[in-house]
Amino acid sequence: MQSRAPLLEALLEYNHMARGNFHVPGHKQGQAWSEREKRWFGSILALDLTEVGHLDDLHDPRGVIADAQALAAEAFHADHTLFLVGGTTAGNMALILSLCQPGDRLLVQRNSHQSIFHGCYFAGVRAIYLPTRVDVVTGLAEPLQPAEIDQLLHQYPDAKGVFITSPSYEGMVQPIRAIADICHRFDVPLFVDEAHGAHFGFHPVLPLSAMQLGADVAVQSTHKMLSSMTMSSMLHIKGSRMEVDQVARALRMLESSSPSYPLLASLDVARRDIVTSGRQRMEQVLHHLISLRAAMEAWCHLREVQMPGIQDPLKCSLKADGRMTGFQLARWLEQRGIYTEFADLAKVLLVFSLGTTAVELQTLSIELLRLDQHLTLLPHRNAHDIPVFPKPVSSDLSFAEIRIATKEVIPLTEAEGRIATEMLLPYPPGIPVILPGELFTQANIHYLGRIIEAGGKVKGSMLSSVCQVSVIK
Amino acid sequence: MQSRAPLLEALLEYNHMARGNFHVPGHKQGQAWSEREKRWFGSILALDLTEVGHLDDLHDPRGVIADAQALAAEAFHADHTLFLVGGTTAGNMALILSLCQPGDRLLVQRNSHQSIFHGCYFAGVRAIYLPTRVDVVTGLAEPLQPAEIDQLLHQYPDAKGVFITSPSYEGMVQPIRAIADICHRFDVPLFVDEAHGAHFGFHPVLPLSAMQLGADVAVQSTHKMLSSMTMSSMLHIKGSRMEVDQVARALRMLESSSPSYPLLASLDVARRDIVTSGRQRMEQVLHHLISLRAAMEAWCHLREVQMPGIQDPLKCSLKADGRMTGFQLARWLEQRGIYTEFADLAKVLLVFSLGTTAVELQTLSIELLRLDQHLTLLPHRNAHDIPVFPKPVSSDLSFAEIRIATKEVIPLTEAEGRIATEMLLPYPPGIPVILPGELFTQANIHYLGRIIEAGGKVKGSMLSSVCQVSVIK
Repeated sequence: MQSRAPLLEALLEYNHMARGNFHVPGHKQGQAWSEREKRWFGSILALDLTEVGHLDDLHDPRGVIADAQALAAEAFHADHTLFLVGGTTAGNMALILSLCQPGDRLLVQRNSHQSIFHGCYFAGVRAIYLPTRVDVVTGLAEPLQPAEIDQLLHQYPDAKGVFITSPSYEGMVQPIRAIADICHRFDVPLFVDEAHGAHFGFHPVLPLSAMQLGADVAVQSTHKMLSSMTMSSMLHIKGSRMEVDQVARALRMLESSSPSYPLLASLDVARRDIVTSGRQRMEQVLHHLISLRAAMEAWCHLREVQMPGIQDPLKCSLKADGRMTGFQLARWLEQRGIYTEFADLAKVLLVFSLGTTAVELQTLSIELLRLDQHLTLLPHRNAHDIPVFPKPVSSDLSFAEIRIATKEVIPLTEAEGRIATEMLLPYPPGIPVILPGELFTQANIHYLGRIIEAGGKVKGSMLSSVCQVSVIK
Repeated sequence: MQSRAPLLEALLEYNHMARGNFHVPGHKQGQAWSEREKRWFGSILALDLTEVGHLDDLHDPRGVIADAQALAAEAFHADHTLFLVGGTTAGNMALILSLCQPGDRLLVQRNSHQSIFHGCYFAGVRAIYLPTRVDVVTGLAEPLQPAEIDQLLHQYPDAKGVFITSPSYEGMVQPIRAIADICHRFDVPLFVDEAHGAHFGFHPVLPLSAMQLGADVAVQSTHKMLSSMTMSSMLHIKGSRMEVDQVARALRMLESSSPSYPLLASLDVARRDIVTSGRQRMEQVLHHLISLRAAMEAWCHLREVQMPGIQDPLKCSLKADGRMTGFQLARWLEQRGIYTEFADLAKVLLVFSLGTTAVELQTLSIELLRLDQHLTLLPHRNAHDIPVFPKPVSSDLSFAEIRIATKEVIPLTEAEGRIATEMLLPYPPGIPVILPGELFTQANIHYLGRIIEAGGKVKGSMLSSVCQVSVIK
């Protein structure tokens, strides 16, 4: 049955059956579009339909969407799978809103994606942050310590659950099984933001998925590391600690009441493809990546950052021993038609997938060798000049208190000692440097300033040219 | 400049420039997809990119997305336009969240789309409902009375604004200009959920748009009545009563941090097409519709419902003088390949657009004539048997109070006199029959029961086969 794609098949059948389309969307299977752009949009518009005929209903699935979700649950080792059209953002928020009442406590990884904090904000949750240590050599967060989670669950016996992120943006995996065991001893659910790990478990070289390792819920950006369309994700549930109906209800509130069928059908196809032909194709990509990494041996300056802990082989973070910032590396490559995922002061991140071709990797290998030779000409800057992720300092004010406080807007450079009322986050990766209720410190002001100076983007600042920030008056 | 589509052009340019794609999404411009489904998805996947190179950033636009939004603002008579990838749902919720603090009052049309109530729920707003009267002949809501809004604004001088819906799902227009004048006398903004009116103002026969009539903000489902992809909408702002930055911030919280570029580019194209060739194509469709409506003269049983007030000519509600329910009409047509927008007990709704072809209208006309002849064979049921939208009865509990109350689940048939804790809404159109905090009455239990009995869908019920509902314990 994994070779079927019931939702896609139903969309094709509609196209076969319909003699008159008197419903939304207004483009009417593309008929409203001019011939010129039909070249790009024409075929997909034929599938851009709505809840008519046998096309089921995402927010109350009983037909082909239910079937497609059931096949996905089987493929991803879940009891239930919900398709998401609002990205992992919608899934993360829905989980918190369905688990927690206002005032409830939730254990949350401090270096989470913004959507988890937004979920806490809307749910009125008191977030307890899991301690995060930064590795001084790589500047990356170290894996979580399960013993510390155990201790926090002892300290806060009323905590409703634990929400962690694994893998990180850079591909670093958390000790999920140990954390899940601890959570279950306290009978609270473990949620995993697995946005960057939809491919896990589909090849022996890859880490196992959160579902395979005992998590209660995992949210995956199927579009990021598998092959569905951007903004389409899946939420997987296992066991009985989290009720699928509760989560579905929160999603009905957060997501569009006109969900995109092309996005949903692309989830159906992505599941089918990874199950039926994924392993073989993954094998090829991994094989090519071994060659790429072998070629790295010859480089003098560029090198792959060695992460603390287990690492996804489809991610590659490169550093240039202080001769270029990550931003500069990315720009150098982009000028040669090589587009990368993300850069910060220290490094540039490359993402591979089933869609990565041998030709592209060859081009990359050649250009990286050229870049390495180019770096020889540049002066060496002190690598320690790159500031590490600053330690957050809490004011103990909750999101709910911040929400109703009187605010004012001041320049970032004058904010030391003041309490932030909104997140400030370099994007990507979307992990907040400052959260509402945290204090501006010399360290985080310097860190943010350096990112802006180097051409990075910081979201949440009111106007990034002058860099104004909102604080409690 | 309206002949340009800057965002689409940038996506095409990326495809021209890129020699290596080392970023998400994982399908890598479709390279991960098998040849078979490339037939449908191939060309769009080439444009399904992310915030790389010159592709700008929806949540902080300074390049091609800013340019595309500026062209849209010009086309839709706004000062600022924000593109939405979470549908009008996201826009409606963001407006309430950016205008209101917890505890604030907002005047809200009672027969609004669910997203407006969800916005009130997340914002902790005390919603004051505008009085709604139902026309006994059509079963449809009558237009709002501006004088009553004036009176409510006197009664609640602390109300932050007014949120109305125009046109309705069936195409009925509210007296926006008069309501806007009243709002502005009290210096509060008027928000219009114009989901079904994105085409307004683009032809003299069509009603003017909310922006043209003085609203401060209008949210339009560009996908519904113009030609963008499903789930893509626009939020238009005029004047200074609503700050664009505040709305943008709320959208950053609600929408995916990986917005879909095909959806965004389809907004760019929809705007260009309606401005450059829309009037002429609208002329053709309107001309064909005159013929269709002329053909209706010959029918014996089927007839178009005459709405109270001004009416969008691109919507057509049909009734069968009590010989068939709307559900039955829709099913009869669907069996012949004619797909309609929506049916309820009384009527079936047809939606036309720029994409409606003469051939389809001819097919429709023939099938409707057949249907009319078929109706002659059926017995006439009393049309008054169809229950009208039941009058809401409030318990005066706020959403915030409901949110923390203890709940229990009971059968709908035993719910009379109990306080609902969740919405119950037939979908489409997504207008709640019962809101959290309202009482179950004989009338609304009967109304919902009849819809379920006739094969309609009611969302928010726990399990629609048994029809369990959640109430305060």
